[in-house]
Amino acid sequence: MIIVLKQGIDEGQKTHLKEWIEDQGISVHESEGEYCSVFGLIGDTGKMDMELIESLDIVESVKRVSDPFKSANRKFHPEDTIIQVGDLLLGKGHFQIIAGPCSVESHEQICEVAEAVKAAGATILRGGAYKPRTSPYDFQGLRSEGLDLLLGAKKETGMPIITEIMNINHLPKFEHVDIIQVGARNMQNHEMLKELGKIRKPILLKRGLANTLKELLMSAEYIMAGGNEQVILCERGIRTFETYTRNTLDLSAVPALRELTHLPIVVDPSHATGIARMVEPMALAAVAAGADGLMIEVHNNPAKALCDGAQSLTPAQFAEVAKKVRRVQEAIAY
Amino acid sequence: MIIVLKQGIDEGQKTHLKEWIEDQGISVHESEGEYCSVFGLIGDTGKMDMELIESLDIVESVKRVSDPFKSANRKFHPEDTIIQVGDLLLGKGHFQIIAGPCSVESHEQICEVAEAVKAAGATILRGGAYKPRTSPYDFQGLRSEGLDLLLGAKKETGMPIITEIMNINHLPKFEHVDIIQVGARNMQNHEMLKELGKIRKPILLKRGLANTLKELLMSAEYIMAGGNEQVILCERGIRTFETYTRNTLDLSAVPALRELTHLPIVVDPSHATGIARMVEPMALAAVAAGADGLMIEVHNNPAKALCDGAQSLTPAQFAEVAKKVRRVQEAIAY
Amino acid sequence: MIIVLKQGIDEGQKTHLKEWIEDQGISVHESEGEYCSVFGLIGDTGKMDMELIESLDIVESVKRVSDPFKSANRKFHPEDTIIQVGDLLLGKGHFQIIAGPCSVESHEQICEVAEAVKAAGATILRGGAYKPRTSPYDFQGLRSEGLDLLLGAKKETGMPIITEIMNINHLPKFEHVDIIQVGARNMQNHEMLKELGKIRKPILLKRGLANTLKELLMSAEYIMAGGNEQVILCERGIRTFETYTRNTLDLSAVPALRELTHLPIVVDPSHATGIARMVEPMALAAVAAGADGLMIEVHNNPAKALCDGAQSLTPAQFAEVAKKVRRVQEAIAY
Amino acid sequence: MIIVLKQGIDEGQKTHLKEWIEDQGISVHESEGEYCSVFGLIGDTGKMDMELIESLDIVESVKRVSDPFKSANRKFHPEDTIIQVGDLLLGKGHFQIIAGPCSVESHEQICEVAEAVKAAGATILRGGAYKPRTSPYDFQGLRSEGLDLLLGAKKETGMPIITEIMNINHLPKFEHVDIIQVGARNMQNHEMLKELGKIRKPILLKRGLANTLKELLMSAEYIMAGGNEQVILCERGIRTFETYTRNTLDLSAVPALRELTHLPIVVDPSHATGIARMVEPMALAAVAAGADGLMIEVHNNPAKALCDGAQSLTPAQFAEVAKKVRRVQEAIAY
Repeated sequence: MIIVLKQGIDEGQKTHLKEWIEDQGISVHESEGEYCSVFGLIGDTGKMDMELIESLDIVESVKRVSDPFKSANRKFHPEDTIIQVGDLLLGKGHFQIIAGPCSVESHEQICEVAEAVKAAGATILRGGAYKPRTSPYDFQGLRSEGLDLLLGAKKETGMPIITEIMNINHLPKFEHVDIIQVGARNMQNHEMLKELGKIRKPILLKRGLANTLKELLMSAEYIMAGGNEQVILCERGIRTFETYTRNTLDLSAVPALRELTHLPIVVDPSHATGIARMVEPMALAAVAAGADGLMIEVHNNPAKALCDGAQSLTPAQFAEVAKKVRRVQEAIAY
Repeated sequence: MIIVLKQGIDEGQKTHLKEWIEDQGISVHESEGEYCSVFGLIGDTGKMDMELIESLDIVESVKRVSDPFKSANRKFHPEDTIIQVGDLLLGKGHFQIIAGPCSVESHEQICEVAEAVKAAGATILRGGAYKPRTSPYDFQGLRSEGLDLLLGAKKETGMPIITEIMNINHLPKFEHVDIIQVGARNMQNHEMLKELGKIRKPILLKRGLANTLKELLMSAEYIMAGGNEQVILCERGIRTFETYTRNTLDLSAVPALRELTHLPIVVDPSHATGIARMVEPMALAAVAAGADGLMIEVHNNPAKALCDGAQSLTPAQFAEVAKKVRRVQEAIAY
Repeated sequence: MIIVLKQGIDEGQKTHLKEWIEDQGISVHESEGEYCSVFGLIGDTGKMDMELIESLDIVESVKRVSDPFKSANRKFHPEDTIIQVGDLLLGKGHFQIIAGPCSVESHEQICEVAEAVKAAGATILRGGAYKPRTSPYDFQGLRSEGLDLLLGAKKETGMPIITEIMNINHLPKFEHVDIIQVGARNMQNHEMLKELGKIRKPILLKRGLANTLKELLMSAEYIMAGGNEQVILCERGIRTFETYTRNTLDLSAVPALRELTHLPIVVDPSHATGIARMVEPMALAAVAAGADGLMIEVHNNPAKALCDGAQSLTPAQFAEVAKKVRRVQEAIAY
Repeated sequence: MIIVLKQGIDEGQKTHLKEWIEDQGISVHESEGEYCSVFGLIGDTGKMDMELIESLDIVESVKRVSDPFKSANRKFHPEDTIIQVGDLLLGKGHFQIIAGPCSVESHEQICEVAEAVKAAGATILRGGAYKPRTSPYDFQGLRSEGLDLLLGAKKETGMPIITEIMNINHLPKFEHVDIIQVGARNMQNHEMLKELGKIRKPILLKRGLANTLKELLMSAEYIMAGGNEQVILCERGIRTFETYTRNTLDLSAVPALRELTHLPIVVDPSHATGIARMVEPMALAAVAAGADGLMIEVHNNPAKALCDGAQSLTPAQFAEVAKKVRRVQEAIAY
């Protein structure tokens, strides 16, 4: 950590700050510039409160030199992490497609979609049981019953499943869920993250709409600090001024996270764009950018032809995307 | 709700959509433009899923005419809501200043700050017991013990208290807390909001860093839909590209929310700017913009003179701010 | 255009507004909802001032049904535009790579880079002569002299060239430039756009850092309204809260613009990320998303080995990217 | 400037970088951390290209210690700048209200508004002659004729005038304009800024929609570097995800700019919010935050009663705002 001190402060204040830092077991290396003094802090500064120091009257600015995340940091764990999901591997070249409906609706629906996406190349089944909705008046998912239906589909199709948790008190119900998803709105629900750190099961952590990549990694760190190192990161769009798409898919997050961390990175083009006809180009772009996996919404409801244009693809459209995904994977694999 | 249909769609699709809408008890009023048809929906469209309709292939765009929040909506409740906090009133001209330390540290500390801010004009005591922190390695607050200390200060000073809840399982401990705060990171923790809707106690709901005013009102609606109508809204800065201040305090939120809702509006300049020397100008600006209250961090720790420049004010600085706040209030009161 | 009127306004005001609209040659189709009245405007509303109407006291909100851009609009020109650049074509399946140095420095430098990128597959040479810089103290480019050097390289290598214009008074100097670039900072320099509409030469228009896709198209419309229909759109990153990359490359702009307009779309991953090692993944992602071309910075300056890590690639790195770009193109070409 | 080097780089690269910096007349002070080395640069680093250094492969990150703006920097000019406008002063406690219509329409209109706002307390007259519009089909102002009308109003009323320049070739026409306005869209039109640096007349520089405060100051620096030190800064809202207001007025810009620079700061609540009924609360808030002036749109067109609700106030509404502004000024003047 580097602390830039203001111009013209007195020696007493400087000494006071220096001693306070040294009391925390950190060495201070001082140097003088033309318009300011600089303290270089040497030691484990991960636990120092950067915001507190930055707010001191005598401090001009503070800069972290090493990132405050440790377990998720590639510097300390250069090897890519591989996550085991049932019999599958994810990460370090092991690519998986997660697909399934937005909401689990019935046994027939979830099994039909599961069979269809499996045939097309999806390897993990997604399905919403507990649904986060902006409005309390919108459909909140079948909740516990939806989870049971999803578990039924797992048994019937043999596919590992992923679904979102919205309340840590529901955790016991997730015993046979293969990957627990933490949604964007709960990315900084620290109490939930801590509890998920105590279990030993893969967690897919979605980036919050207004969260930086480093904050995403700090949230992963909350889980990993508890001992659960099986964290999958998911880029699903950030909030910007552009309103044509629901959110702005930040694909540079893929190479950026690749540098910063050893954890696998999955991209969700369905929620990012909110528009079915954009899922294919953005899925292919995510693969070309180097993602370890995709998460795609697929529905199958011929009775509600109305929904054909939703952010969900039909099984036929999904099969087309999956085929092209394989071609792009091969193209970049050399 | 108004649905703009795409150019050149066939009559069958149009009839299909129309019937599907009418099946939900909504009338459809059709009109033809030069390049499109428009459906005007008449009836209670609050429960229609706007995103679903927007994603249909035959739909160009959708526009809500009436906002999907009902309980919080000024249109249906033109009168300003007044919240009772202990013996105090908040809202409709009743202005209150909430002040206190970032974290509760000890009995002496919290009581000393409480007495100081009370003397200067604060009427509600704030203090962090459970602290949301980006890093798992940062101080997480004294938690349950901190809450006990805060309750002790309430007893000793007679001030009503406010503190943040981070886990709905902690709710029983909040029995004697006067206002429960929901932090920005939990603004869309819907499971928590629903539980808070079941109690009968004022909730101060902070706007999320990337949430629109209408989303803030939808989150208030989650609480109010449960029957708890005592919601106080709090603007505390949004995330933008500007990095000079921690967040960007959106003061136009004050008159905007005043139009949209009857709920009281409080502004927190301490967290928004993250810089103590900006608290005074932004507090005065918030009052001039018409806020119903302020929430200001004040610490009192002569032993750690280092912290003097933090986002927290000293009691002396706070007293100065409170004095000027009263002058601005008088200036705009005519 | 649809105008939603406020609840409870009197008939006189409504009639007044209706007559004012009709005076402009637009028909008004009125319908009544439960909480509001709606005016549907039929006719050429492209010239109506939406902001003015939206700001009327009796108006709740306004929605454009047809976009206010005409020449750039795919609805009125369904066929993809193909731009002729020297002997090359760009658009509708004709893919080109623009490459070259950030700044033109000397005859040797620009020719050496030109030959290298040409050998690797680039077909258009870029080079900065007039440089937009945030600071007046930063190097502003060789300006007129740089343009001469670039024209020399065109003669020597036979490659068509592109360079940025910063002052419309410089236009005569651009006579032999093949594509004139309008930089992000000048995307809404309307006086310049109008002048560029009077010439007959391809214009590459970069999206402004805070501009929506529709604003980009309105700026293209400024050029096209003057009669110059050879506009190439360029996505080069938008400004968001994320600071890890210089800007956030918005690749969903590619399929989104594809829907909205018939103009060709080029992506600049060098300026978007500002980091050389991210150029390859983002270039490949842009191709997979369907871009018609790429714009990549390449330098060749063994004397300043220091610059090796800049946002510019070395010719060897560029050759590698170009090879992979071809593979991804083939993968998505089926 | 501080350069943080990556872990594990070899000594040769380090020495190379050090020598390259020293060749530019800057001393390098080296220090070793646990995970990195740090170079502290001492000397005039204002001309070093921070982005270039940041992009080097061996560099982890770079931090400026002193800001790259000099003339605008309060550190080097602690005294507030006072701008002379006709007989008026602006800055350092001298507060002025600029008011007038969005567009100059006729002699009668501009003179009538001028007299009305003068009577209510405005001291400088604004009026749009050249109008920046997103669409080429929207009204572009009366241009040269509008400027003549504005000059006529200056003669008739004796009020100094301000109007926007959109093309530097129009500069000769601005000879008798008292303050030349540079609009938000041209804040980084560097060629124009340089020309405005050559004249000796106050320039009001509006912050771009996506520009940081430091970029605003760098643009002021472009003008000041040419010798024209009479720059007035204007906050007029930034672009964020919130769509309720046209832009988000960033009032913390007022105290932030106060720290960073000695230049006067004006706030434009009309353009920031785009909603007439929000002008009063935001104007009062701007004054409470410490602004040196306001810029407010006022129209007077009884024939077009339709416009009554626009972002422009009526003269009567403006008089009310001006009266309250004076009260808030007194309230904070102690």
